[in-house]
Amino acid sequence: MDVHIITIGDELLIGQVIDTNSAWMGEQLEREGFRTTWRTTVGDTESDILEAIDNAMHRTGGGIVLLTGGLGPTKDDITLRALCRYFDCGLHFSQAAYDNIAGLFQASGRAMNRLTRDQAMVPDACTVIQNRAGTAPCTWFEREGNVLVSMPGVPSEMKWLMKHEVLPRLKQRYGRDLAIRHRTTWVGGYSESALAIALTAFEEELPPFMKLAYLPEPGLIRLRLSAYTGDEPEAEKAIAEQREKLHRLLEGHILSEEEGAPEEQVGQALLRRKLRMGTAESCTGGRIAGMITSVAGSSRYFTGGIVAYDNEVKRRLLGVPEEALERYGAVSQAVVEQMALGAIRALGCDCAVATSGIAGPDGGTPEKPVGTVWIAAAWNGRVISRCYRFSAVREMNIARASGTALLMLLELLANDC
Amino acid sequence: MDVHIITIGDELLIGQVIDTNSAWMGEQLEREGFRTTWRTTVGDTESDILEAIDNAMHRTGGGIVLLTGGLGPTKDDITLRALCRYFDCGLHFSQAAYDNIAGLFQASGRAMNRLTRDQAMVPDACTVIQNRAGTAPCTWFEREGNVLVSMPGVPSEMKWLMKHEVLPRLKQRYGRDLAIRHRTTWVGGYSESALAIALTAFEEELPPFMKLAYLPEPGLIRLRLSAYTGDEPEAEKAIAEQREKLHRLLEGHILSEEEGAPEEQVGQALLRRKLRMGTAESCTGGRIAGMITSVAGSSRYFTGGIVAYDNEVKRRLLGVPEEALERYGAVSQAVVEQMALGAIRALGCDCAVATSGIAGPDGGTPEKPVGTVWIAAAWNGRVISRCYRFSAVREMNIARASGTALLMLLELLANDC
Repeated sequence: MDVHIITIGDELLIGQVIDTNSAWMGEQLEREGFRTTWRTTVGDTESDILEAIDNAMHRTGGGIVLLTGGLGPTKDDITLRALCRYFDCGLHFSQAAYDNIAGLFQASGRAMNRLTRDQAMVPDACTVIQNRAGTAPCTWFEREGNVLVSMPGVPSEMKWLMKHEVLPRLKQRYGRDLAIRHRTTWVGGYSESALAIALTAFEEELPPFMKLAYLPEPGLIRLRLSAYTGDEPEAEKAIAEQREKLHRLLEGHILSEEEGAPEEQVGQALLRRKLRMGTAESCTGGRIAGMITSVAGSSRYFTGGIVAYDNEVKRRLLGVPEEALERYGAVSQAVVEQMALGAIRALGCDCAVATSGIAGPDGGTPEKPVGTVWIAAAWNGRVISRCYRFSAVREMNIARASGTALLMLLELLANDC
Repeated sequence: MDVHIITIGDELLIGQVIDTNSAWMGEQLEREGFRTTWRTTVGDTESDILEAIDNAMHRTGGGIVLLTGGLGPTKDDITLRALCRYFDCGLHFSQAAYDNIAGLFQASGRAMNRLTRDQAMVPDACTVIQNRAGTAPCTWFEREGNVLVSMPGVPSEMKWLMKHEVLPRLKQRYGRDLAIRHRTTWVGGYSESALAIALTAFEEELPPFMKLAYLPEPGLIRLRLSAYTGDEPEAEKAIAEQREKLHRLLEGHILSEEEGAPEEQVGQALLRRKLRMGTAESCTGGRIAGMITSVAGSSRYFTGGIVAYDNEVKRRLLGVPEEALERYGAVSQAVVEQMALGAIRALGCDCAVATSGIAGPDGGTPEKPVGTVWIAAAWNGRVISRCYRFSAVREMNIARASGTALLMLLELLANDC
């Protein structure tokens, strides 16, 4: 079943807030066999919201429209008004919604006021779904075979509602008419175009219900193989067959076939080997530690990290020798290897990654231009280290260096089995 | 002039990649007086791309349509084909585009192949803009007063093109018909609804070309006042007048009137006072250090950070007394204050923030449920610390605790002047 997502809010359009909701929703929906085919973002303007809803209802014809945002208690939140207009109905007071709001206020010891009470006013033409994660109501509308669900834009509230209320109801309403499977293969040693040439025949021979996508990352390509078909065994079988072919074609170039992000893969690898890791970061400034600890349960394998921005911190906490810093500079193989080894000592862990580079936009030299990053991974007395030249963009250098460091650690752990 | 942004890629719809491009573009466009009114995301499907382009061209009527994505060398990248179809033209070989690609390959020491050469094929009906940041071409189309520009989806390439080519050309083409100004006021001590009640009359009296938006953050509200009007002096004057009114209405509750994100405000405050900071993070796992170092030039005021996930790291590197950990537990006022003071000692900085909490989803107790976070800020012998209860969602607890820690440091620095 097709899904059209609409996210509402001026703050999204002017870039004050990055829309992470719709990506999360797309991921959850795919897992359950719903296919997100279109996404619209509009501001807090009634006519635009109405137009977006109308477009979406017509486009999906009997499908699902999911709205987030514009449900707060303040004057700039006008989604409910637009929904009443679209479904040609009024608002009424919902005692159940009121009780939910009152309960939330009581639990946090805050006093309700006129506007929070107003949040119990809901459209006549809908089913109200109780939002246990916040005060804004979730509402479910049906018209001409279409389902439209409006949820708050606060990520935690939207996620709670999707998981506990909206997805279960959608599954019950639609069953599963489509099995969707995606599988990822991480390939090294190819540029995107060289890999595409190597896989020309493979792609041409793919069955029509399958798709291959190339997602380039620094130093590697994430290949995504997708099957959209009638049932799960068929999708699984088709994916397995094509993966076999990929194996033969790309022998020696497949770095990983795990699904998760690098930080999840690292966690799995460490748990399997009963190891604990640490980080020593200069140019990535804590991003790697942040990625690792974004995974629930990471305290089982992450002891800690040191962000050594200042050279004095590299010396004092990581034990990098003064001589190495002076002779080779902070952005050097000698220093980054010492950082990784120093992290193992200082943080009492089994393995570690380290980064030192010039994130930019300033600080580059002809010899070490902006984007130059040394990365090391150390475990069990062994250290691997490499120099990368990423880009001129600070944000990208930090992100790429962080992802690459995690993949280097995976490589080090894998090669010792 | 109105802008409609279209982002293209299956990876966006299924949530494999979060669309950060369109937020960045919206922000840059606003600064130059272009107003983003609508955003569409579609997958790598020709009919959907065509429909999205057609909708956007009709909606903006004489406005600007900006496309990103789908320009890579592989088979799943079909934006140029869709553009040829829409503008009813063919492709031709561009020597200038070829020279640019060849130069980029030469600089990185890689060999070109058939597919990279194909990237020099460009639509007949457009002006080609050279992309110095990558191999995918940027193309500029005009039809019936509309401008459509297609750019690569790789963020660094899109940003380079917007800054150096697209925005300057748009400014030249359209001049400025609209001055847009946004100003932020950070307000503490109110819930969103209580603040809206306090500002009811203020909002009603706003001139019709102005807008007030409430963006709730943990423990505070970000108020955004916007003016959309004919010229800059008028917009500035209108904003200044309304801010005066806000000052009188919210006396004692305005935390900051700086525009930037908390990490930028902290950087400014430290530079003004010639101070350097450090971090000691447990539950935020490096996120605060990552936020601070995401700002260019942060090495001038950030010495480093310690991610003390394991209690042993809290003891060893931050000098937290064993007794405090045993008696009060890691998530306690005593420990978080010691962490902040320990960070100042260990990292050789003037001030520091520290966090210790239960990010979840596991690890909560009836006394300290998931979402409980102690945060401290220390400077000049003074320490402030507070306990927060954020939410049940790990990602949100980490983000809120990190933002709150930075605001606490701002508060500590401000109150000493």
